Amino acid sequence: MSAGILALNFVSSPGAGKTSLLVRTISDLKADRPIAVIEGDQQTSNDAERIRATGVPAIQINTGKGCHLDASMVGDAFDRLPPLEGGLLFIENVGNLVCPAAFDLGEAHKVVVFSTTEGEDKPLKYPDMFAAASLMLINKMDLAPHVDFDLARTVEYARRVNSRIEVLTVSARTGEGMPAFYAWIARRADGKPTASAAE
Amino acid sequence: MSAGILALNFVSSPGAGKTSLLVRTISDLKADRPIAVIEGDQQTSNDAERIRATGVPAIQINTGKGCHLDASMVGDAFDRLPPLEGGLLFIENVGNLVCPAAFDLGEAHKVVVFSTTEGEDKPLKYPDMFAAASLMLINKMDLAPHVDFDLARTVEYARRVNSRIEVLTVSARTGEGMPAFYAWIARRADGKPTASAAE
Repeated sequence: MSAGILALNFVSSPGAGKTSLLVRTISDLKADRPIAVIEGDQQTSNDAERIRATGVPAIQINTGKGCHLDASMVGDAFDRLPPLEGGLLFIENVGNLVCPAAFDLGEAHKVVVFSTTEGEDKPLKYPDMFAAASLMLINKMDLAPHVDFDLARTVEYARRVNSRIEVLTVSARTGEGMPAFYAWIARRADGKPTASAAE
Repeated sequence: MSAGILALNFVSSPGAGKTSLLVRTISDLKADRPIAVIEGDQQTSNDAERIRATGVPAIQINTGKGCHLDASMVGDAFDRLPPLEGGLLFIENVGNLVCPAAFDLGEAHKVVVFSTTEGEDKPLKYPDMFAAASLMLINKMDLAPHVDFDLARTVEYARRVNSRIEVLTVSARTGEGMPAFYAWIARRADGKPTASAAE
Protein backbone atom coordinates (compact mmCIF):
# COMPACT_ATOMS: atom_id res chain seq x y z
CA MET A 1 0.00 0.00 0.00
CA SER A 2 1.07 3.61 -0.50
CA ALA A 3 2.76 5.58 2.24
CA GLY A 4 0.53 7.05 4.90
CA ILE A 5 -2.34 4.61 4.49
CA LEU A 6 -3.38 2.16 7.19
CA ALA A 7 -4.88 -0.91 5.51
CA LEU A 8 -6.92 -3.39 7.56
CA ASN A 9 -8.15 -6.73 6.17
CA PHE A 10 -11.44 -7.79 7.84
CA VAL A 11 -12.07 -11.55 7.85
CA SER A 12 -14.87 -13.64 9.41
CA SER A 13 -17.53 -16.27 8.88
CA PRO A 14 -20.42 -15.22 6.65
CA GLY A 15 -22.82 -13.14 8.71
CA ALA A 16 -20.50 -12.20 11.58
CA GLY A 17 -21.35 -8.56 10.92
CA LYS A 18 -18.32 -7.16 9.07
CA THR A 19 -20.33 -4.81 6.86
CA SER A 20 -22.46 -3.45 9.73
CA LEU A 21 -19.29 -2.92 11.73
CA LEU A 22 -17.66 -1.04 8.85
CA VAL A 23 -20.75 1.10 8.25
CA ARG A 24 -20.77 2.23 11.88
CA THR A 25 -16.99 2.72 11.99
CA ILE A 26 -17.00 4.81 8.82
CA SER A 27 -19.92 6.95 10.00
CA ASP A 28 -18.06 7.68 13.23
CA LEU A 29 -14.56 8.24 11.76
CA LYS A 30 -15.06 9.74 8.30
CA ALA A 31 -14.88 13.31 9.59
CA ASP A 32 -11.38 12.64 10.95
CA ARG A 33 -9.58 11.17 7.93
CA PRO A 34 -10.21 9.86 4.42
CA ILE A 35 -11.60 6.32 4.25
CA ALA A 36 -12.14 3.92 1.35
CA VAL A 37 -13.34 0.33 1.21
CA ILE A 38 -12.67 -2.69 -1.00
CA GLU A 39 -15.45 -5.29 -0.71
CA GLY A 40 -15.10 -8.98 -1.55
CA ASP A 41 -18.04 -11.33 -2.11
CA GLN A 42 -18.73 -14.34 -4.29
CA GLN A 43 -21.66 -12.46 -5.82
CA THR A 44 -23.69 -9.22 -5.48
CA SER A 45 -22.61 -5.64 -4.90
CA ASN A 46 -24.91 -5.23 -1.88
CA ASP A 47 -22.07 -4.57 0.54
CA ALA A 48 -20.39 -1.88 -1.57
CA GLU A 49 -23.77 -0.17 -1.88
CA ARG A 50 -24.20 -0.21 1.91
CA ILE A 51 -20.72 1.32 2.30
CA ARG A 52 -21.30 3.98 -0.38
CA ALA A 53 -24.45 5.06 1.45
CA THR A 54 -22.12 6.35 4.21
CA GLY A 55 -20.53 8.71 1.67
CA VAL A 56 -17.12 7.06 1.21
CA PRO A 57 -15.89 5.35 -1.97
CA ALA A 58 -16.14 1.55 -2.22
CA ILE A 59 -15.13 -0.94 -4.91
CA GLN A 60 -16.87 -4.32 -5.06
CA ILE A 61 -14.90 -7.39 -6.17
CA ASN A 62 -16.89 -10.52 -7.02
CA THR A 63 -14.77 -13.64 -6.65
CA GLY A 64 -17.16 -16.00 -8.46
CA LYS A 65 -16.14 -19.52 -7.42
CA GLY A 66 -13.25 -18.13 -5.34
CA CYS A 67 -13.25 -18.23 -1.55
CA HIS A 68 -10.96 -15.26 -0.86
CA LEU A 69 -9.50 -12.01 -2.22
CA ASP A 70 -5.91 -11.97 -3.48
CA ALA A 71 -3.35 -9.16 -3.68
CA SER A 72 -3.77 -8.66 -7.42
CA MET A 73 -7.55 -8.13 -7.13
CA VAL A 74 -6.98 -5.67 -4.30
CA GLY A 75 -4.23 -3.83 -6.19
CA ASP A 76 -6.50 -3.37 -9.22
CA ALA A 77 -9.34 -2.11 -7.03
CA PHE A 78 -7.02 0.23 -5.12
CA ASP A 79 -5.97 1.87 -8.40
CA ARG A 80 -9.62 2.72 -9.08
CA LEU A 81 -10.08 4.51 -5.73
CA PRO A 82 -9.46 8.25 -5.25
CA PRO A 83 -6.21 9.26 -3.46
CA LEU A 84 -6.23 8.16 0.18
CA GLU A 85 -3.08 9.85 1.58
CA GLY A 86 -3.12 9.71 5.39
CA GLY A 87 -6.30 7.67 5.39
CA LEU A 88 -7.77 4.28 6.16
CA LEU A 89 -8.31 1.46 3.68
CA PHE A 90 -10.74 -1.18 4.91
CA ILE A 91 -10.72 -4.46 2.97
CA GLU A 92 -13.74 -6.66 3.67
CA ASN A 93 -12.80 -10.18 2.65
CA VAL A 94 -15.17 -12.96 1.51
CA GLY A 95 -16.98 -14.44 4.52
CA ASN A 96 -14.88 -17.53 5.12
CA LEU A 97 -12.83 -18.72 8.11
CA VAL A 98 -10.45 -20.88 6.06
CA CYS A 99 -9.17 -19.54 2.73
CA PRO A 100 -8.49 -15.84 3.50
CA ALA A 101 -6.06 -16.78 6.30
CA ALA A 102 -3.37 -17.71 3.80
CA PHE A 103 -3.41 -14.55 1.65
CA ASP A 104 -1.54 -11.32 2.38
CA LEU A 105 -3.35 -8.44 0.66
CA GLY A 106 -0.77 -5.82 1.63
CA GLU A 107 -2.62 -5.00 4.83
CA ALA A 108 -0.98 -3.86 8.07
CA HIS A 109 -3.25 -6.16 10.09
CA LYS A 110 -5.88 -8.81 9.71
CA VAL A 111 -8.88 -8.17 11.98
CA VAL A 112 -10.98 -11.28 12.61
CA VAL A 113 -14.61 -10.49 13.41
CA PHE A 114 -16.16 -13.23 15.52
CA SER A 115 -19.78 -13.11 16.63
CA THR A 116 -21.14 -14.38 19.93
CA THR A 117 -23.65 -16.59 18.11
CA GLU A 118 -20.96 -18.73 16.44
CA GLY A 119 -19.87 -20.81 19.44
CA GLU A 120 -16.73 -20.49 21.54
CA ASP A 121 -14.83 -23.34 19.87
CA LYS A 122 -14.24 -21.65 16.51
CA PRO A 123 -10.67 -20.42 17.23
CA LEU A 124 -9.65 -24.04 17.83
CA LYS A 125 -11.52 -25.40 14.81
CA TYR A 126 -10.25 -22.71 12.40
CA PRO A 127 -6.86 -21.94 13.99
CA ASP A 128 -5.08 -20.53 10.92
CA MET A 129 -7.38 -17.52 10.79
CA PHE A 130 -7.01 -16.65 14.47
CA ALA A 131 -3.25 -17.20 14.26
CA ALA A 132 -3.03 -14.77 11.32
CA ALA A 133 -5.05 -11.97 12.97
CA SER A 134 -3.67 -9.13 15.12
CA LEU A 135 -7.08 -8.31 16.59
CA MET A 136 -10.21 -10.32 17.35
CA LEU A 137 -13.34 -8.16 17.45
CA ILE A 138 -16.03 -10.10 19.29
CA ASN A 139 -19.22 -8.71 17.73
CA LYS A 140 -22.92 -9.10 18.55
CA MET A 141 -22.29 -8.66 22.28
CA ASP A 142 -25.95 -7.55 22.49
CA LEU A 143 -26.92 -11.16 21.67
CA ALA A 144 -24.51 -12.73 24.20
CA PRO A 145 -27.14 -13.22 26.95
CA HIS A 146 -29.47 -15.05 24.52
CA VAL A 147 -26.84 -17.63 23.55
CA ASP A 148 -25.05 -18.18 26.90
CA PHE A 149 -21.88 -16.84 25.32
CA ASP A 150 -18.73 -17.62 27.34
CA LEU A 151 -16.31 -14.73 26.75
CA ALA A 152 -13.47 -16.06 28.92
CA ARG A 153 -13.47 -19.40 27.14
CA THR A 154 -13.47 -17.75 23.70
CA VAL A 155 -10.49 -15.58 24.62
CA GLU A 156 -8.66 -18.56 26.12
CA TYR A 157 -9.16 -20.58 22.92
CA ALA A 158 -8.05 -17.68 20.71
CA ARG A 159 -4.90 -17.15 22.82
CA ARG A 160 -4.15 -20.87 22.65
CA VAL A 161 -3.63 -20.53 18.88
CA ASN A 162 -2.24 -16.95 19.01
CA SER A 163 -0.82 -15.77 22.33
CA ARG A 164 -0.41 -12.20 21.02
CA ILE A 165 -3.91 -11.65 19.64
CA GLU A 166 -5.66 -8.56 21.00
CA VAL A 167 -9.36 -8.84 21.88
CA LEU A 168 -12.10 -6.21 21.95
CA THR A 169 -15.82 -6.79 22.53
CA VAL A 170 -18.27 -4.74 20.49
CA SER A 171 -21.78 -4.54 19.15
CA ALA A 172 -22.04 -2.98 15.72
CA ARG A 173 -25.80 -2.75 16.31
CA THR A 174 -25.79 -0.86 19.64
CA GLY A 175 -22.36 0.79 19.38
CA GLU A 176 -21.18 -0.85 22.62
CA GLY A 177 -17.38 -1.06 22.76
CA MET A 178 -16.78 0.74 19.46
CA PRO A 179 -14.73 3.65 20.95
CA ALA A 180 -12.05 1.17 22.05
CA PHE A 181 -11.85 -0.12 18.49
CA TYR A 182 -11.51 3.43 17.17
CA ALA A 183 -8.68 4.02 19.65
CA TRP A 184 -7.00 0.82 18.43
CA ILE A 185 -7.20 2.15 14.85
CA ALA A 186 -5.94 5.61 15.84
CA ARG A 187 -2.89 4.18 17.61
CA ARG A 188 -1.92 2.39 14.41
CA ALA A 189 -2.79 5.21 12.01
CA ASP A 190 -1.08 8.03 13.92
CA GLY A 191 2.67 8.36 14.31
CA LYS A 192 3.25 5.37 12.12
CA PRO A 193 3.73 6.76 8.64
CA THR A 194 3.37 3.58 6.55
CA ALA A 195 1.26 0.47 6.69
CA SER A 196 4.34 -1.73 6.61
CA ALA A 197 5.91 0.16 9.51
CA ALA A 198 2.78 -0.49 11.53
CA GLU A 199 3.48 -4.25 11.55
CA MET B 1 -22.74 -45.14 -0.86
CA SER B 2 -23.88 -48.71 -0.22
CA ALA B 3 -27.43 -49.81 -0.95
CA GLY B 4 -30.04 -48.96 1.67
CA ILE B 5 -28.20 -46.02 3.19
CA LEU B 6 -29.46 -42.46 3.00
CA ALA B 7 -26.46 -40.11 3.05
CA LEU B 8 -26.97 -36.40 3.76
CA ASN B 9 -24.17 -33.81 3.45
CA PHE B 10 -24.69 -30.92 5.91
CA VAL B 11 -23.09 -27.63 4.86
CA SER B 12 -23.16 -24.14 6.42
CA SER B 13 -21.18 -21.18 7.72
CA PRO B 14 -19.08 -21.85 10.81
CA GLY B 15 -21.36 -21.68 13.84
CA ALA B 16 -24.72 -22.12 12.09
CA GLY B 17 -25.43 -25.00 14.45
CA LYS B 18 -24.85 -28.15 12.37
CA THR B 19 -23.46 -30.20 15.24
CA SER B 20 -26.21 -29.20 17.68
CA LEU B 21 -28.77 -30.03 15.02
CA LEU B 22 -27.22 -33.46 14.43
CA VAL B 23 -26.99 -34.20 18.16
CA ARG B 24 -30.72 -33.53 18.59
CA THR B 25 -31.66 -35.39 15.40
CA ILE B 26 -29.64 -38.44 16.38
CA SER B 27 -31.05 -38.48 19.91
CA ASP B 28 -34.58 -38.42 18.49
CA LEU B 29 -34.08 -40.90 15.62
CA LYS B 30 -31.48 -43.42 16.77
CA ALA B 31 -34.11 -45.81 18.16
CA ASP B 32 -35.68 -46.07 14.68
CA ARG B 33 -32.66 -46.91 12.49
CA PRO B 34 -28.88 -47.14 12.55
CA ILE B 35 -27.07 -43.81 12.26
CA ALA B 36 -23.41 -42.92 11.77
CA VAL B 37 -21.63 -39.60 11.29
CA ILE B 38 -18.55 -38.39 9.42
CA GLU B 39 -17.29 -35.06 10.79
CA GLY B 40 -15.13 -32.58 8.88
CA ASP B 41 -13.16 -29.76 10.53
CA GLN B 42 -9.88 -27.99 9.89
CA GLN B 43 -8.74 -29.02 13.37
CA THR B 44 -10.01 -30.68 16.61
CA SER B 45 -12.15 -33.74 17.18
CA ASN B 46 -14.64 -31.83 19.36
CA ASP B 47 -17.57 -32.44 17.04
CA ALA B 48 -17.02 -36.21 16.73
CA GLU B 49 -16.86 -36.37 20.54
CA ARG B 50 -20.17 -34.51 20.83
CA ILE B 51 -21.73 -36.97 18.37
CA ARG B 52 -20.29 -40.06 20.09
CA ALA B 53 -21.83 -38.88 23.36
CA THR B 54 -25.23 -39.65 21.76
CA GLY B 55 -24.17 -43.30 21.40
CA VAL B 56 -23.68 -43.51 17.63
CA PRO B 57 -20.34 -44.02 15.83
CA ALA B 58 -18.56 -40.96 14.42
CA ILE B 59 -15.30 -40.52 12.48
CA GLN B 60 -13.52 -37.16 12.57
CA ILE B 61 -11.63 -35.95 9.50
CA ASN B 62 -9.26 -32.99 9.96
CA THR B 63 -8.72 -31.18 6.67
CA GLY B 64 -5.72 -29.10 7.85
CA LYS B 65 -5.44 -26.22 5.36
CA GLY B 66 -8.36 -27.60 3.34
CA CYS B 67 -11.73 -25.85 3.21
CA HIS B 68 -13.96 -28.87 2.42
CA LEU B 69 -14.27 -32.66 2.54
CA ASP B 70 -13.77 -34.68 -0.64
CA ALA B 71 -15.16 -38.06 -1.73
CA SER B 72 -11.91 -39.91 -1.05
CA MET B 73 -11.73 -38.72 2.58
CA VAL B 74 -15.37 -39.68 3.07
CA GLY B 75 -14.87 -43.09 1.44
CA ASP B 76 -11.94 -43.88 3.74
CA ALA B 77 -13.91 -42.81 6.80
CA PHE B 78 -16.98 -44.78 5.70
CA ASP B 79 -14.87 -47.97 5.52
CA ARG B 80 -13.98 -47.50 9.19
CA LEU B 81 -17.62 -47.30 10.31
CA PRO B 82 -19.66 -50.35 11.37
CA PRO B 83 -22.23 -51.69 8.84
CA LEU B 84 -25.07 -49.22 8.31
CA GLU B 85 -27.55 -51.22 6.19
CA GLY B 86 -30.93 -49.43 6.10
CA GLY B 87 -29.53 -46.51 8.05
CA LEU B 88 -28.62 -42.85 7.88
CA LEU B 89 -25.16 -41.45 7.19
CA PHE B 90 -24.80 -37.81 8.21
CA ILE B 91 -21.75 -36.02 6.81
CA GLU B 92 -20.99 -32.72 8.56
CA ASN B 93 -18.81 -30.70 6.23
CA VAL B 94 -16.28 -28.02 7.17
CA GLY B 95 -18.07 -24.79 8.09
CA ASN B 96 -17.76 -22.85 4.85
CA LEU B 97 -20.33 -21.43 2.42
CA VAL B 98 -18.01 -21.51 -0.61
CA CYS B 99 -15.78 -24.55 -1.13
CA PRO B 100 -18.06 -27.48 -0.14
CA ALA B 101 -20.63 -26.48 -2.79
CA ALA B 102 -18.47 -27.88 -5.57
CA PHE B 103 -17.79 -31.36 -4.12
CA ASP B 104 -20.06 -34.40 -4.42
CA LEU B 105 -19.37 -36.75 -1.50
CA GLY B 106 -21.72 -39.48 -2.71
CA GLU B 107 -24.61 -38.00 -0.76
CA ALA B 108 -28.26 -38.17 -1.79
CA HIS B 109 -28.76 -34.54 -0.79
CA LYS B 110 -26.92 -31.49 0.43
CA VAL B 111 -28.71 -29.83 3.36
CA VAL B 112 -27.67 -26.21 3.89
CA VAL B 113 -28.08 -25.05 7.48
CA PHE B 114 -28.61 -21.31 7.65
CA SER B 115 -29.04 -19.47 10.95
CA THR B 116 -31.26 -16.47 11.55
CA THR B 117 -28.30 -14.47 12.89
CA GLU B 118 -26.41 -14.55 9.57
CA GLY B 119 -28.47 -12.01 7.62
CA GLU B 120 -31.05 -12.60 4.90
CA ASP B 121 -28.72 -11.80 1.99
CA LYS B 122 -26.47 -14.84 2.26
CA PRO B 123 -28.22 -16.95 -0.44
CA LEU B 124 -27.50 -14.16 -2.95
CA LYS B 125 -23.91 -13.63 -1.78
CA TYR B 126 -23.04 -17.36 -1.72
CA PRO B 127 -25.35 -18.64 -4.47
CA ASP B 128 -23.46 -21.83 -5.39
CA MET B 129 -24.15 -23.40 -2.00
CA PHE B 130 -27.86 -22.64 -2.04
CA ALA B 131 -28.10 -23.79 -5.67
CA ALA B 132 -26.48 -27.12 -4.75
CA ALA B 133 -28.72 -27.86 -1.75
CA SER B 134 -32.02 -29.77 -1.81
CA LEU B 135 -33.10 -28.44 1.58
CA MET B 136 -32.45 -25.23 3.52
CA LEU B 137 -32.86 -25.68 7.26
CA ILE B 138 -33.28 -22.24 8.83
CA ASN B 139 -31.88 -22.78 12.32
CA LYS B 140 -31.83 -20.63 15.49
CA MET B 141 -35.47 -19.61 15.02
CA ASP B 142 -35.47 -18.94 18.80
CA LEU B 143 -33.12 -16.00 18.12
CA ALA B 144 -35.18 -14.61 15.22
CA PRO B 145 -37.02 -11.96 17.32
CA HIS B 146 -33.71 -10.60 18.66
CA VAL B 147 -32.27 -9.98 15.20
CA ASP B 148 -35.38 -8.81 13.29
CA PHE B 149 -35.02 -11.84 11.03
CA ASP B 150 -37.07 -11.60 7.82
CA LEU B 151 -38.10 -15.16 6.92
CA ALA B 152 -40.03 -14.29 3.75
CA ARG B 153 -37.08 -12.36 2.32
CA THR B 154 -34.64 -15.18 3.11
CA VAL B 155 -36.84 -17.73 1.34
CA GLU B 156 -37.33 -15.39 -1.63
CA TYR B 157 -33.54 -14.95 -1.99
CA ALA B 158 -32.90 -18.70 -1.70
CA ARG B 159 -35.56 -19.48 -4.34
CA ARG B 160 -34.05 -16.82 -6.61
CA VAL B 161 -30.87 -18.96 -6.87
CA ASN B 162 -32.65 -22.34 -6.56
CA SER B 163 -36.36 -22.41 -7.42
CA ARG B 164 -36.67 -26.03 -6.20
CA ILE B 165 -35.04 -25.70 -2.78
CA GLU B 166 -37.22 -26.89 0.11
CA VAL B 167 -37.26 -24.80 3.29
CA LEU B 168 -37.91 -25.80 6.91
CA THR B 169 -37.56 -23.59 10.00
CA VAL B 170 -36.11 -25.16 13.15
CA SER B 171 -34.37 -24.50 16.42
CA ALA B 172 -31.86 -27.14 17.39
CA ARG B 173 -31.84 -25.58 20.86
CA THR B 174 -35.60 -25.66 21.60
CA GLY B 175 -36.61 -28.48 19.24
CA GLU B 176 -39.08 -26.21 17.41
CA GLY B 177 -39.77 -27.50 13.90
CA MET B 178 -37.63 -30.62 14.19
CA PRO B 179 -40.48 -33.14 13.59
CA ALA B 180 -40.96 -31.72 10.08
CA PHE B 181 -37.26 -32.31 9.41
CA TYR B 182 -37.55 -35.89 10.66
CA ALA B 183 -40.51 -36.42 8.33
CA TRP B 184 -38.40 -35.03 5.44
CA ILE B 185 -35.69 -37.58 6.28
CA ALA B 186 -38.19 -40.44 6.64
CA ARG B 187 -39.75 -39.73 3.23
CA ARG B 188 -36.30 -40.07 1.64
CA ALA B 189 -35.13 -43.06 3.70
CA ASP B 190 -38.28 -45.17 3.37
CA GLY B 191 -39.51 -46.75 0.17
CA LYS B 192 -36.42 -45.57 -1.64
CA PRO B 193 -33.93 -48.40 -1.44
CA THR B 194 -30.74 -46.56 -2.39
CA ALA B 195 -29.27 -43.15 -1.84
CA SER B 196 -28.90 -42.62 -5.56
CA ALA B 197 -32.55 -43.51 -6.18
CA ALA B 198 -33.50 -40.87 -3.64
CA GLU B 199 -32.20 -38.12 -5.91
